[in-house]
Amino acid sequence: DPKLKIFALNSNKPLAEKIAKEVGVELGKSSVKRFSDGEIQINIEESIRGDDIYLVQSTSAPVNDNLMELLIMIDALRRASAHTISVVIPYYGYARQDRKARSREPITAKLVANMLERAGATRVLALDLHAAQIQGFFDIPVDHLMGAPLLADYFLRNHYNGEDTVVVSPDHGGVTRARKLAEFLKAPIAIIDKRRPRPNVAEVMNIVGKVDGKRCIIIDDMIDTAGTITLAAAALKNAGATEVLVAATHAIFSGPAVERLENSVIEQVVVTDSIQLAEDKKLSKLVTVSVGPLIGRAITRIQENKPVSPLFENRFK
Amino acid sequence: DPKLKIFALNSNKPLAEKIAKEVGVELGKSSVKRFSDGEIQINIEESIRGDDIYLVQSTSAPVNDNLMELLIMIDALRRASAHTISVVIPYYGYARQDRKARSREPITAKLVANMLERAGATRVLALDLHAAQIQGFFDIPVDHLMGAPLLADYFLRNHYNGEDTVVVSPDHGGVTRARKLAEFLKAPIAIIDKRRPRPNVAEVMNIVGKVDGKRCIIIDDMIDTAGTITLAAAALKNAGATEVLVAATHAIFSGPAVERLENSVIEQVVVTDSIQLAEDKKLSKLVTVSVGPLIGRAITRIQENKPVSPLFENRFK
Ligand SMILES: Nc1ncnc2c1ncn2[C@@H]1O[C@H](COP(=O)(O)O)[C@@H](O)[C@H]1O
Ligand SMILES: Nc1ncnc2c1ncn2[C@@H]1O[C@H](COP(=O)(O)O)[C@@H](O)[C@H]1O
Repeated sequence: DPKLKIFALNSNKPLAEKIAKEVGVELGKSSVKRFSDGEIQINIEESIRGDDIYLVQSTSAPVNDNLMELLIMIDALRRASAHTISVVIPYYGYARQDRKARSREPITAKLVANMLERAGATRVLALDLHAAQIQGFFDIPVDHLMGAPLLADYFLRNHYNGEDTVVVSPDHGGVTRARKLAEFLKAPIAIIDKRRPRPNVAEVMNIVGKVDGKRCIIIDDMIDTAGTITLAAAALKNAGATEVLVAATHAIFSGPAVERLENSVIEQVVVTDSIQLAEDKKLSKLVTVSVGPLIGRAITRIQENKPVSPLFENRFK
Repeated sequence: DPKLKIFALNSNKPLAEKIAKEVGVELGKSSVKRFSDGEIQINIEESIRGDDIYLVQSTSAPVNDNLMELLIMIDALRRASAHTISVVIPYYGYARQDRKARSREPITAKLVANMLERAGATRVLALDLHAAQIQGFFDIPVDHLMGAPLLADYFLRNHYNGEDTVVVSPDHGGVTRARKLAEFLKAPIAIIDKRRPRPNVAEVMNIVGKVDGKRCIIIDDMIDTAGTITLAAAALKNAGATEVLVAATHAIFSGPAVERLENSVIEQVVVTDSIQLAEDKKLSKLVTVSVGPLIGRAITRIQENKPVSPLFENRFK
């Protein structure tokens, strides 16, 4: 039987360690260094001939470096006769460039999918892709994991559930995600309906649903510059919310995000460790839930040819 | 007839301008920016439907960013219905990772070729690839230009030729290149034969050929950290060379290169503009020869379905 091996690249070693621990293996021996001119140098330091390889890499910032590390490692594994190469991408960079919103735009999320396949990936494990349609950009199997149940666990453990709580979608696109979390928490939902009354006038945040006197949990797939989410939080407070919490799978925290979140009315920011945060991005109000055990269990089930979906579906029924 | 358009990305705009000038067109309108999280955002700001596009980008440092810019732009051009997409890569990064020198190494030069084709490139124009075999990594047409005639022109204009001059190859791999330059200069050649007498003992630079009392021109395809070339220059001086010049197509100049070259016995460093040098890398003894006119003429010939090779073959016969 092919042996299961897990390798980690540089973007998120702590998460890879947790995944390996859950699976019950040591991380494979490899090194990723730079030549003097900045080109990536990869060494796989043990035989992987005939093995089933799981390669953990988030394509978070620096996105191009992390993506090239991943592609070069896939190339090396394929040439070293790996049996299968499953790429575990807890955070899939370039996911927002998933369609031509304007003329002559690239569709970089599809380009990345093509690159991964051409390099030699035989399977993808992803977590909360910005659009579920990105699964269809691949012709190889994609297992798409969800962070919502883990985030729900946290809120349930802290009794942030039931009719006192409202799960809020910060935009129309996120309603399905909010519905899911609301189901877990047995809570109602609300939706923020951004409208620009006239051109060149600031957007107005209309709130659809009852939030007055309630604890609000805004959920999104990612927090990038935190502009929308901090404005939404302020609007909820103005509308009478008793407290505002925020939940998101991917903590990108670029540009002014940390400052905005720290200075906002938001009481807690609950995220996963899909992206490894630099020390200076660790907010005081941050709660981090690990996706390591979830991904580890998914890998074990894939190796046993068992479906992955029971790990995150219908848990609270 | 399809219209010829030249677009430049960020790595080497000055060279792209020179190419466009030679061809007699303006550079196409496009912008390459970064989103807050560092992801590349590309906008093509004019219609290119049905056009023949030449896209100029060296994959020099930062190599991964420059490569991703190139791939994303190819994706955007293809989706915007370009007729053909010719990628002009004056410096081809990752070229030294062109074979498995050790077990389980990637062959990144081939990976890059695959990525360019998968993204949608229909033709490649390259200059002095580290190994000519990299042409075979592509299944699309590759036009492989040579910098040696341009470097030769410089030396001829300065009367660095004839029997007083010796063209020196810094290693066995570079003898063909040295032979070429020597032909142009009607000069003899010499070869540096690096030998390690015993393990853990410094290499000895043996010189094969007569250099005593001569002007030596060391030629290589690239100068990276400049370690080998400065040692070779010192060895030539020790062996009685009257002066030592260095010629190379690609000025990578990474790590200690600038310091080493400045402090060396080398009198002139003659390179091309295939890589755009930062201001702090412009040596006092640097001479730069532009490959813009050569590449421009090659593009014109390709558009006219004429062979490209007469541009750099048999010029001095
Ligand atoms: N890294 C990024 N940061 C901010 N915006 C982006 C990024 N990548 C793509 N976009 C833009 O975000 C929009 C898609 O976001 P969404 O509507 O949330 O799916 C598109 O118009 C993209 O041009
Ligand atoms: N960017 C780089 N800088 C230094 N060495 C490299 C680089 N890329 C590849 N190499 C190594 O250089 C060797 C090939 O160089 P060469 O023998 O000159 O063709 C291989 O052993 C590579 O591992």
